[in-house]
Formats: sequence, C-alpha cells, structure tokens
Amino acid sequence: MIVTLAGGVGASRFLQGLMKVVDPESVVAVVNTADDVVLHGLRVSPDLDTVTYALAGAVDPERGWGVADESWAVMAALERLRPSAPDGSTAGVTWFRLGDRDLATHLYRTQRLREGARLSQVTGEIGRAWGLRCRLLPMTDDRVETRLVVAGEGEIGFQEYFVARRHAVAVTSVRFAGIAAALPATGVLEAIKEAQRVVIAPSNPVVSIAPVLAVPGVEEAVAARRDDTVAISPIVAGAALKGPADRLMAELGHEPSVVGVARMWAPWAATLVIDEADAALAPAVEEEGVRCIVAPTVMHGPAEAAALARLVLSL
Amino acid sequence: MIVTLAGGVGASRFLQGLMKVVDPESVVAVVNTADDVVLHGLRVSPDLDTVTYALAGAVDPERGWGVADESWAVMAALERLRPSAPDGSTAGVTWFRLGDRDLATHLYRTQRLREGARLSQVTGEIGRAWGLRCRLLPMTDDRVETRLVVAGEGEIGFQEYFVARRHAVAVTSVRFAGIAAALPATGVLEAIKEAQRVVIAPSNPVVSIAPVLAVPGVEEAVAARRDDTVAISPIVAGAALKGPADRLMAELGHEPSVVGVARMWAPWAATLVIDEADAALAPAVEEEGVRCIVAPTVMHGPAEAAALARLVLSL
Repeated sequence: MIVTLAGGVGASRFLQGLMKVVDPESVVAVVNTADDVVLHGLRVSPDLDTVTYALAGAVDPERGWGVADESWAVMAALERLRPSAPDGSTAGVTWFRLGDRDLATHLYRTQRLREGARLSQVTGEIGRAWGLRCRLLPMTDDRVETRLVVAGEGEIGFQEYFVARRHAVAVTSVRFAGIAAALPATGVLEAIKEAQRVVIAPSNPVVSIAPVLAVPGVEEAVAARRDDTVAISPIVAGAALKGPADRLMAELGHEPSVVGVARMWAPWAATLVIDEADAALAPAVEEEGVRCIVAPTVMHGPAEAAALARLVLSL
Repeated sequence: MIVTLAGGVGASRFLQGLMKVVDPESVVAVVNTADDVVLHGLRVSPDLDTVTYALAGAVDPERGWGVADESWAVMAALERLRPSAPDGSTAGVTWFRLGDRDLATHLYRTQRLREGARLSQVTGEIGRAWGLRCRLLPMTDDRVETRLVVAGEGEIGFQEYFVARRHAVAVTSVRFAGIAAALPATGVLEAIKEAQRVVIAPSNPVVSIAPVLAVPGVEEAVAARRDDTVAISPIVAGAALKGPADRLMAELGHEPSVVGVARMWAPWAATLVIDEADAALAPAVEEEGVRCIVAPTVMHGPAEAAALARLVLSL
C-alpha cells in the first residue's frame, strides 16, 4: 500500500503517475479538506474533486481542476441574478466557478451529507461513480476550515483568499478552525501505519499538507513512519509551480526554497525529492537532517509523473 | 390593486393575461409555497418559480414550468452518479428535473435564506432580476409542507406524489405540516384587505389554493372580501385541465365538478367563473350561494388569458 498525503492539482498529477506504476488498488490518497467550502448551500470539496476528476481522466487539462469539456450554464444564469443581491450577500457570487458537471458532484455530496453519510463514505461513492480503483480518503469527516488573516483586513476563508483575491494579498497567519476536535477519517491512521511508503505530495505545504498533518493523530502516525516517508518539494528554484505556496511560505516565516521545505517536513519525512534546478541546494537540504534526492520533479505530463512516482517508490 | 391567490401553471397563465389588461404594478400574487422542497440541499419553490418565469416571458411553453430553452447538463451528470447512491438515498434522484438555468435560481435562493433573508425578500430579488413589475409574495415566510397519505403506503411529500409518482396513486388525506405556526408573509393580509379585486386562480384547489387560505389569518382576510372575490374554476367538464385536481378532489370527498369547486370556495368567493362547457351546471353552482358566470376559461394563449382577466375585473 502506498499512502499519499495530498492537496489538489500538484498531488493529483503525482497520483496520476503513481497509478501507472503500481496497482491502483494499492494506492490510498489522504486528501486535504480544510479548503472545503459551502457555496449556495452546497458542500464543495475542491481537493477531493480535483483528485477524483484527475484520476478519472476527466480533469480539465488546462486548468488542472474541474471537469474537461465543462459547460457553465448555471453560472451564466447566476450571473444574471447577481445584480439583485443586496450588498454583502454572496448569493450571486460567481467568482467561484462551479461548472455544470461539477455541480452535480456537489448536489450529490450535499444530499448524502444531509442524509447523515460521512464525507469519507460519500467520497468513496463519488469515486466509484467515476471509476476510480484507488482509495480516496478525506483527511477527516469533521468540518475543518482554513482561515487566513490578511494584513490590514482581518480573517477570511480559504476560497475567498485563493479564488476571490487570487492569493494576491499578504497573509500574516493561517489557522485550521475545528482541527483540534477533528478525528482522522476511518482508515487514515491504519493506512499510514501499514503503508510500504508514505508520500508527501508536491502540494502547498502551508494550506494543503499542513492541515492533513494537523488532524490529531496524523503527525504522530507519519512521524512513526519517517524512514519510509518521502516528500516531493512543491518549490522549484524558489518558486511554486502553481499557486501561492512560495509567497505563503515567505509570509509565514518559512524560507521559500527546497531548504525551507526540508525544514518543514524534516520531522515527518526522512527523504526529500528536489528538482534538478535546485541541485546546488542538496547539501543544505541534507543539513536539515533529510536525505536529498535530486530528480526531475516538474510533471509536464503522464510520462514525467510516472517517472517521478517510480523514483519515489524505488527509494 | 388586484390580488391573486396562486398556485403554479394555471395561475401563471391567468396572471400573464392580467398583466396585459392592468398596470402590472397594481398586481399582487400570493403564491403557494407548501409544495416547496429541499433537494440536494437546495430550496426549490416550484410555484413561485413557475409564476416568475411565466411573467418574465421565459417559461417553457410546452411544459408550462421551468425556463424555455433550458439545458440539462447538471441533471445528466447527476444521472451518472446515481448508481453509486446507496438504497434509500435520494442523492442521485433526477426525477425532479432541475434545469441548469433553474438551478441558478435555487442556488441564489438557498444562499440568501442561509444569510437570514426572508423568502419574501428573496422572491422580490429574483423577480426584479427577471424584470417583473408586479409583486410576488410567498403565502408565508415560514416552512409549510404538504404531506399526503397514500393508501396502503403512508405519508409522502408533495413532490414525491406529484413528480416521482406522477400523481398516479390514491390519496386518502392531505395536511399542511407547519401551517398552524406559519405567519402570512409581510404584505399578504394588507394586500387582500386593500385590493379592489381578489382572484382565486384556476389552480388545484386541494394542494395549491387550500394551503394559501390555510395560512392563519388569510381565510378571515379573504372572507371579509368575499363580495369582491372571484374564483375561476380549475375544473372544466369534470376534469382538471392539467394535473390531478379532479382526482384529488374526488379522493378527498369533493365533487370533481364546478359545483364541488363552488362548494369549496363559497365561504370566500361570492362569484365563480365556470367554463362554457359547464354552462348547464350554472344553476347548481348558484344553489351553493355563489354567483355563477359562464365564460371561456381555457387559456390556450395570451389572448384568452387576457380576455378572462378582463372579465374577472369587470364583474
């Protein structure tokens, strides 16, 4: 069994590669849910959905999230209602683009949760509908919410930061509301314990991987598997390939480099894979007490992703 | 001011006619909400939406409800998720067809209600977005639910009866759960009190008009205006033009004829308009203590609807 701690886009690229080199049924992804959001009454789980669509081969290849060949009829109609919404209402918001096919996932999930199903059950059902053969687990069935304090503005939710503000504002702190009372979803700790390999995917360390680790019990479980845990740096040449990981790391006092990543993951991962662009930093990474492997980590396509997965398994 | 007590399709046809013969701003429709339903977490108000789309000139002319030129991408995607839903779950139900444009209305409404807005406010906002110039009021801002006891089966909700079972099961009783505690929406009683004319639309008497009257205070308000109240029979030649009004009336002990309608509305309406097909029953209607007007009531199109509205105003 291979367990991957996963965010959205970066993780799903890696997982697509992993599926090509091992039996998909041996793969477990433990996915961040701290950026889940309720929009228009619907429970949206962006990272779970990104991974699901990606592994189903249905993800939009341009955006890296959402469904390919998506239509946008509902958003277009909501756009027409927006002028009626009073100030301060988010009833007409369309900055969070919910495609028509994607909406069906949210309708399904919302109804199942209303029926009392756990998110992990529902995630399994949605995964089966999309033909997934691996196991996708939300990090927790409980509600955890990433909240970010924006300088001069106060606290906002993750999607407001990420989508509405396009992560173009300075963040002074991050917390995961509800995390202290959250329990790992059934199967998460067991999978980490039994895995031959635990992988920390090249996802945003601060807002994708940190919440997964912060679910009570997960840090300890991963720490106990430190020798078998391999992290892949999402920072290449001092920058995130996608998203605000580099900025967020810097704003929150982490060096936005593979060395900063090594420092963050050193308690949990004995090995860090960094990109060839950062080869010169390998000694500095190893000074953090982490074995450093230099390899091509930028996954332009399935071939690179499979090669990276093969490498991670071979270590 | 003209107040119309309204259900869905039949009422909206009449209201379309009314708009053509009076200043729309003088029209108030008090609309049934007892068949509102929460589907996939979304609050759906079928009668309010039917009237809104109809008066906006956007209703689907074939179905009489929903938006014309609707697309169904979300339903099609939900259909693909359905096989994953466990037995008894309604997460994958697609029998209640929510079109893409229609869904935007429900997303908007659901979010506004979550923000604490009253249904009447939200209804006004949606109406303005669709360019309505008349006033649409839900009968109440409170949650009322039509529940029907089906012989040999127990109690089911209205949409399950109406849509899922296509009203092809025998009903032994109907109740409006929550009605005793419901308050008329702001403006409902005032409008009835001040109207020059109150109209009981040709909607299903048992499940569309009865709940409106059953909101505490409405019966008394309409009874006080009995002389100025005109009902239009939804029963023509012993049958409903659309839907199960005739069957429901018979099952619940009302004669499914214009005489039965006269008996139902006699306490509230001094005048009943019946179709020419029922001319022979006019004396029997008048025996119920109701003035009977015989006229063409079948609204094939805008011209007939306008003529009927003109007649109702002239009485």
